Amino acid sequence: MGESQQKKVVTIGGGTGTFVVLSGLKHIPSVSLKAVVSVADDGGSTGRLRDGYGFLPLGDARQALLALADENGATLMRALFNYRFSKGDIAGHNFGNLFLTALTDILGTDSEAIEAASQILRVEGRVVPVSDTPATLIAELENGESITCEHNIDERVYGRSPIKSLTAETSIDISHDAKDAVHEADVLILGPGDLYTSTLANFVVSGLSEEVKTSKAKLVYIMNLFTKAGQTDGYSAQNHIDAIERHIGRKPDIVVLHTGVFPEKILKRYADENEFPVVDDLPENNNIIRGVFADVVEAQQLEGDTVPRSFIRHNPEKISEIFKTLL
Amino acid sequence: MGESQQKKVVTIGGGTGTFVVLSGLKHIPSVSLKAVVSVADDGGSTGRLRDGYGFLPLGDARQALLALADENGATLMRALFNYRFSKGDIAGHNFGNLFLTALTDILGTDSEAIEAASQILRVEGRVVPVSDTPATLIAELENGESITCEHNIDERVYGRSPIKSLTAETSIDISHDAKDAVHEADVLILGPGDLYTSTLANFVVSGLSEEVKTSKAKLVYIMNLFTKAGQTDGYSAQNHIDAIERHIGRKPDIVVLHTGVFPEKILKRYADENEFPVVDDLPENNNIIRGVFADVVEAQQLEGDTVPRSFIRHNPEKISEIFKTLL
Repeated sequence: MGESQQKKVVTIGGGTGTFVVLSGLKHIPSVSLKAVVSVADDGGSTGRLRDGYGFLPLGDARQALLALADENGATLMRALFNYRFSKGDIAGHNFGNLFLTALTDILGTDSEAIEAASQILRVEGRVVPVSDTPATLIAELENGESITCEHNIDERVYGRSPIKSLTAETSIDISHDAKDAVHEADVLILGPGDLYTSTLANFVVSGLSEEVKTSKAKLVYIMNLFTKAGQTDGYSAQNHIDAIERHIGRKPDIVVLHTGVFPEKILKRYADENEFPVVDDLPENNNIIRGVFADVVEAQQLEGDTVPRSFIRHNPEKISEIFKTLL
Repeated sequence: MGESQQKKVVTIGGGTGTFVVLSGLKHIPSVSLKAVVSVADDGGSTGRLRDGYGFLPLGDARQALLALADENGATLMRALFNYRFSKGDIAGHNFGNLFLTALTDILGTDSEAIEAASQILRVEGRVVPVSDTPATLIAELENGESITCEHNIDERVYGRSPIKSLTAETSIDISHDAKDAVHEADVLILGPGDLYTSTLANFVVSGLSEEVKTSKAKLVYIMNLFTKAGQTDGYSAQNHIDAIERHIGRKPDIVVLHTGVFPEKILKRYADENEFPVVDDLPENNNIIRGVFADVVEAQQLEGDTVPRSFIRHNPEKISEIFKTLL
């Protein structure tokens, strides 16, 4: 299929949710994919490297690269990019993050590092950091307090005062590549993923909201399956939409909303973390696509991995089916 | 050239000296190269990984892989294998060592890791650890004391009581691959390199001396240029030969001996570390190949690198010329 006939689909996000969406959409031949990823990560392996080097944090870029990597080739390299050290003084470091840091140091820029990694992993599509400057997030809470740093906002502090707004500590600009990607997009996809620390973390960058607001692209939001303790406690589906509108200044045109019921045993596990299914309080209309789009996934907790893994995930193929009809 | 017409050349060593020899010999088409490398490294980046994982220490293997890598292709991968982190909690770690550790953990064995790295670096020839078991060195000194661990023996303690013998803390066997390599060799090359911690470190492995003693291959020793503080203080050329005979039970058939004179400024720098040119007290005969085989090299001290780098090195091309006439 010629490039001109392809629909330009751009995800804006980071983390596991974006990984799942990219994994699904990359199999649609009529789609040309770009992943705009957050540069706000400052916890775990990425945070340790960011502290040492001051490079752009590429933890979200790494996951997007992996999602877009060739599944049939580059097997060993994909395993390496996903590998986490579990022993000695490097325990907790992800090999892909070390790879991207070394590449950035050798080649001189993060974009060259991403380009080199894209070739090594035989990536289809492009991964584009939302800014060339690392972002430090500040969440203003409704009680007047504020929390600095992505990894602090990301902590599961159930019942914390709700987040009123998310900004960057110092003003940073959208990257040229991210601006171009959004400008040329036919479809923009937000979510799923932690509403503040993955999705809206991108919009602390000056220029992104403006691009999205003025874009003629369809804005699709894939609704989260669960609330996240300390970030979206008690959020209904409408509350998610409202937070997006408040931060971006534009409502999603289309909302993808999972309506399936999960096994009690797994709900219990989420409830133990004070996380609950997002309640569907949206109206019945054609812009709300309801259906069973998520599965129980036996995601292994990696040794040495300090981030707890969720066990219900959107299904890449089902996400892909939705977009085949949407495009 | 058919494989059967090729001369089988096997280096036994590790470190920078072996790197130089391999870099030179790999350009001779009539040579099929194998590098038998030590498994005694327990300092620096390799040591930290060895402490954490207990895998075979592959620091010497890494250097040999780099020496045999394709100089025209694999440019970025070679740069990565040579890259040392200089900042944050991973400062001092070599990327190649991390790569080999992750590969060993993913693939299950060190030999598969070396094989995979050989493909990634487009290596010509083979790198063979001398044993499948990590070695812990013990140096017995003439004053009755002993020093345990390679990195302690390697410390530049000028005037320390001379080393009487070098052994392994527990008995470990030669690997099948190393045994085969030595058994089939037409030429065996020892040195240059730290006499005890790089060259003789291999011979603490049960079975290697026996293979070398009974081998019909020519045994070539490339004499070190300088004494090493704490290891070979006051050693003349003959003292080097004697130490080899004492540990292996066989004298070199051919000794390559650099006779050039070095600039005073550089000699001064070595003298500051209590290291001095090895005095030539060998007889005049056909088995001693004398000539100018070394250069002043502006070897950069890598940032974050804790090992001081020497500034006079054998010249790979000149080493290669010697072997073209020898073979």
